[in-house]
Amino acid sequence: MNYHTQHAPLGAFASFTLGLPGSRGGFGQSLCGPADHNVYVGHRCAKPGAAWQLLPFYRRPEKAAVAAFTGETGKVPATPPRMIDITAVTRDLGWASDTWRHNDFSFRLLSPFARTEDPAAMTDTDARHAFAPVICAEISYDNTEVDSTVELLFGLGNTEVPLRPLEDSCTDLQGFAAGRGFGFAARPSDIEEPMQSLDLFDPPALDHRGLHLLGSEAALVFRVPAGESRRFPLALGFYQAGIVTTGIEASYYYTKFFPDLEDVLRHGLAAHARYVAQSEARDAELVGAALNDDQRWLIAQATHSYLGSSQLLLHEGRPLWVVNEGEYRMINTFDLTVDHLFFELAWHPWAVRNTLDLFVRRYRYTDSIQRPGGGAPVPGGISFAHDMGVANQFTLPGTSSYECTGLHGCFSHMTMEQLLNWICCAVTYADKTGDIGWLREQQALLLDCAESLRRRDDPDPSQRTGLIKWDSHRCGPNGSEITTYDSLDVSLGQARNNLYIAVKAFATWTLLERAFATLGLRTDAEAARASAHLAAAAIAAQFEDDTGTFPAVFEAGNKSRILPAVEGLVFPLYLGFAEELRTRHPGLFAQLSRHLCNVLQPGVCLDAESGAWKISSTSTNTWFSKIALAQHVVRRLFPNALSEAANQADAVHARMQRSTPLGRFAMVDQVHSTTGTDLGSRYYPRIVTACLWMEPQACPPNQESVIRIR
Amino acid sequence: MNYHTQHAPLGAFASFTLGLPGSRGGFGQSLCGPADHNVYVGHRCAKPGAAWQLLPFYRRPEKAAVAAFTGETGKVPATPPRMIDITAVTRDLGWASDTWRHNDFSFRLLSPFARTEDPAAMTDTDARHAFAPVICAEISYDNTEVDSTVELLFGLGNTEVPLRPLEDSCTDLQGFAAGRGFGFAARPSDIEEPMQSLDLFDPPALDHRGLHLLGSEAALVFRVPAGESRRFPLALGFYQAGIVTTGIEASYYYTKFFPDLEDVLRHGLAAHARYVAQSEARDAELVGAALNDDQRWLIAQATHSYLGSSQLLLHEGRPLWVVNEGEYRMINTFDLTVDHLFFELAWHPWAVRNTLDLFVRRYRYTDSIQRPGGGAPVPGGISFAHDMGVANQFTLPGTSSYECTGLHGCFSHMTMEQLLNWICCAVTYADKTGDIGWLREQQALLLDCAESLRRRDDPDPSQRTGLIKWDSHRCGPNGSEITTYDSLDVSLGQARNNLYIAVKAFATWTLLERAFATLGLRTDAEAARASAHLAAAAIAAQFEDDTGTFPAVFEAGNKSRILPAVEGLVFPLYLGFAEELRTRHPGLFAQLSRHLCNVLQPGVCLDAESGAWKISSTSTNTWFSKIALAQHVVRRLFPNALSEAANQADAVHARMQRSTPLGRFAMVDQVHSTTGTDLGSRYYPRIVTACLWMEPQACPPNQESVIRIR
Repeated sequence: MNYHTQHAPLGAFASFTLGLPGSRGGFGQSLCGPADHNVYVGHRCAKPGAAWQLLPFYRRPEKAAVAAFTGETGKVPATPPRMIDITAVTRDLGWASDTWRHNDFSFRLLSPFARTEDPAAMTDTDARHAFAPVICAEISYDNTEVDSTVELLFGLGNTEVPLRPLEDSCTDLQGFAAGRGFGFAARPSDIEEPMQSLDLFDPPALDHRGLHLLGSEAALVFRVPAGESRRFPLALGFYQAGIVTTGIEASYYYTKFFPDLEDVLRHGLAAHARYVAQSEARDAELVGAALNDDQRWLIAQATHSYLGSSQLLLHEGRPLWVVNEGEYRMINTFDLTVDHLFFELAWHPWAVRNTLDLFVRRYRYTDSIQRPGGGAPVPGGISFAHDMGVANQFTLPGTSSYECTGLHGCFSHMTMEQLLNWICCAVTYADKTGDIGWLREQQALLLDCAESLRRRDDPDPSQRTGLIKWDSHRCGPNGSEITTYDSLDVSLGQARNNLYIAVKAFATWTLLERAFATLGLRTDAEAARASAHLAAAAIAAQFEDDTGTFPAVFEAGNKSRILPAVEGLVFPLYLGFAEELRTRHPGLFAQLSRHLCNVLQPGVCLDAESGAWKISSTSTNTWFSKIALAQHVVRRLFPNALSEAANQADAVHARMQRSTPLGRFAMVDQVHSTTGTDLGSRYYPRIVTACLWMEPQACPPNQESVIRIR
Repeated sequence: MNYHTQHAPLGAFASFTLGLPGSRGGFGQSLCGPADHNVYVGHRCAKPGAAWQLLPFYRRPEKAAVAAFTGETGKVPATPPRMIDITAVTRDLGWASDTWRHNDFSFRLLSPFARTEDPAAMTDTDARHAFAPVICAEISYDNTEVDSTVELLFGLGNTEVPLRPLEDSCTDLQGFAAGRGFGFAARPSDIEEPMQSLDLFDPPALDHRGLHLLGSEAALVFRVPAGESRRFPLALGFYQAGIVTTGIEASYYYTKFFPDLEDVLRHGLAAHARYVAQSEARDAELVGAALNDDQRWLIAQATHSYLGSSQLLLHEGRPLWVVNEGEYRMINTFDLTVDHLFFELAWHPWAVRNTLDLFVRRYRYTDSIQRPGGGAPVPGGISFAHDMGVANQFTLPGTSSYECTGLHGCFSHMTMEQLLNWICCAVTYADKTGDIGWLREQQALLLDCAESLRRRDDPDPSQRTGLIKWDSHRCGPNGSEITTYDSLDVSLGQARNNLYIAVKAFATWTLLERAFATLGLRTDAEAARASAHLAAAAIAAQFEDDTGTFPAVFEAGNKSRILPAVEGLVFPLYLGFAEELRTRHPGLFAQLSRHLCNVLQPGVCLDAESGAWKISSTSTNTWFSKIALAQHVVRRLFPNALSEAANQADAVHARMQRSTPLGRFAMVDQVHSTTGTDLGSRYYPRIVTACLWMEPQACPPNQESVIRIR
């Protein structure tokens, strides 16, 4: 259990991060990693001089603050707190809860989420509840078998500014806040004593209330009488007023319903039981899923990090949905949106539409395209920017914060991939939700997308082969397009003639075929179907009979083997027509099956040492979000490829994420497949795509899968 | 020149801190120390591959940001910048400017300030100019003698979020900002090239504009053709919208006039010439003062730190003045207000009145008093809280963030001292400004103050001795009052029977006498005069003829010797009636003169090793603000006490503040008198009291001394 978890409300781009033993965490607003607060949680026997026993979520001593005033150096406190040995603690991470137990003591943090419909159509009461920037917690002790009183403590230390007692601003809350931005509260009737000092466990001074307002350490003490079992609710809240972004000037959506932090905390306590019920419902759903414990844990941890990156803004009176890109904080990175898609369709499908609309409205562009190595540019077509900006700073229309020119690797353009992503997200959204009205509004755009897609095979229809061979002119004469797998080697880095892109494009044509059919565009549907066939044939032609695999890149004798060969099939699978495709393209599917059987072997796409899945045979940089996606497709469509070794990898993946190198940053995407060290994409939302594992086995299209998930 | 300086606009509680070689600084909003930004300032020959020569205000390399994306570790950049050896640089700190010169290159930062009247009565245009949260800078090169083009660079790195190009939000500014909070700008016509990257001097990627929006490093490049001399203005701005405080909910006053950061920067450039003229006027005034270079430097550095702690808020449509207490960030700490008084009366006298009114309205209380060691409390009288809160969090009425109960040292109550401080500030304000209308409004309060002061001698008039012997009941049965000198030993720590407090109380009675006379309260003036005589006699009786000194505390055989024996005389001196007092109390003045002659000796109140002045013979913790004040009183009233050693100490004090231990935190108040290390009160405003040294030699009351200072 060497890991932090992001305990986060939906849409506040904020996390109360906790869990890595021996380290700090606490309240983080829009950070790229854990905050640096001591979190004091524990219990003691209510006898004079009894030491607090605290969970190991702090670093002591805090004498610097005292010395700054008195010029004195530290001394050992009379009764220093005792840090509980983590081996004596059990921890259970649920889908929407995180519980620590130490003998009769327990502490849990809740990150409830629930299905929401379009916020613009919600009642204020419902929206207030759904988007409150609050985390619920509960501290409890079963003292029924004991004959002495026990005290419980929840507190915070090492905050950037001294804390302030909430009792100074309202009578119905007891707790502490740092300025106007965050704080914690309980019901005054539950509190035995508030504490605040420069040093909570050895206060150099206390005022008439027993507090010291200069203190950056504060806590609430609860009392459990002998023979009783008590459970005390806590609310942990965030608040940011006013405009928080640039480029597009927006404020937090919750500011429509909450005037300040106090009101957030008040709501957190008042609605505590409802939030608990929501959390427990989510927990039960995950427990009820046909998954092993490692899989459940991975989903739970991934969902927590997703929520921590989520951000619902208010712009010109309307909701604006953002998922920030973990430590990078890029806004709505499109190649993450396409992976968040499945979770969002289950829980807040309006968010998908909201993001797609913003990509259309502001982050669409029309480019020229060029042959590899430059040459005269010719008209390309439409595509979409890689992202919408970074760290609350929206970029200019049609541009991303990430993409640069003149490159063949990291930071180059992803024009092709984002075009595929828009189509995949749009058709999947419309198909899954049945929002055909919206699909109809996109008709012209979908046709433009199809044309853009074809031209990137070749502008001259007679030259088309079914593979993408042209790069966006935005790459410049000395650059070429890349894929989302930017930090990998060429096996996944290059967009042109790439197996991953090729299969994804094949799948995209099948989606377009369905969309055009739905829209009654029979000719276009037929054309899309023909393009799918062309793509399928082109891919099939690259199969190496001798090795029984596809090369990752259809150029330069590439010998890499990759799992994302089948990534694109997730959409047909999700929408329930993958088996229909298999029937249509038995050869390709058989080749993909053979490919998977041959690559899911130790030393190829299973790390020879650790046993972890690897997305590429030629890179030890593997991305867990994409592993999760590949696992889903393989399990559902190519189960024969699942060797015993491949099946056992969940334990490896979970162990890596639960261990110190990764666990410092909650969920990490880019991992060294052998050593399990973090290579990038820390504190990352994308792995929520693992929620696909909870999809029912056969899911017909146009039905609310969420009903069955729940 | 091993020191940081806070370059700060008036009233923004913000500093652009720069100057300590080999360290970072940059934009800090309401911080307790320097920010952590790389500041890139320098020049290069405009030839391919020529290295930038940069002032040493950064730490390299910045490869972590790149590695986070690419997973790659650092490499040496092709043409790394060369850090200019600080010994090749000259630095001149003026009263409102700071200039670095390296050969023909120069860079200066300006912190202009000017006399302001009540903001509520200012025109919007004047207020906008006076309170703009902007610092002006100027980068220049004299290329007249050279036949090749030179490029100049100003930039920032290691910001908390990637920077954003201002050209994306407006056409009339070129520069970069971090979110909505701070940024730098120049005129677009001056700019040769903007730069932004993950690594400014070895960019892994650049977009079509030659920028990379993910970069937390950005700069502006200027060009100076061969044979020309060029000077380019820069504006460095801060902005915080909305309510920024709790307890009293207030926003920044400048938000009345500036809608956003861009407008602040725009103003900074438009008004650049005017700000330059203001800065140069201040610089000339300091140069023109009859002071030595060390004294001038100390005043300049102190004024910069004062400005960095200053904060003008807007509350219910009216100005609310705050000076934050340096690293501690306490709001309007009263024992600092009384030291800021002289600078504020010269430059913004309305601020004094504003603070005094808020103390009366919200931070006044009526206490009970007790004999030392407890006993039954009896009615005391009015006094004022030590401070108004901390870090933008205002405390409840009548309470401070600092004061605690049951203590004899640091964090105890300062009831007596704050009572004296209110009277001293109020009478000095009214007398100096001639605001007799305001004084009249305080008439009842002044009478209450006098009564409270007397009762702290003894509640029974027949028992009064002229010394303060009772403590506030707020101290509790196990506590006693302290003075502002909280971290010193008992020589200055204890309020009761304390020489410093006794002389200050004596002076306070003389101020009350003047105030009551002005108000036509002849009887009360007579009574105040009698109290002054009683106090003078009580103090005189404590003189030790054998040692020729006063003990610091009139109890327990105390043998400490202190310089603040004469601190209270600063008010009569400032108001021009000190010589009148000497005539009235020749014995006491003669004793004080002997005292000073005897304590201003090595090993007593001159540090035997360093030669620095020490406020107490028994503590090596010395406070430079109080040294400055004592120096002023000694020089003007007791010049005979100035030995050669005492006179040479300015060089010692300046050297300590300019050296690394202190220089890391701009101006530091609490210093180890022997080693010159920092003991507390870093980044501190209080030393601005050194501006007293600029007072004209004889300053009659009721005249605008500022006219002569300027």
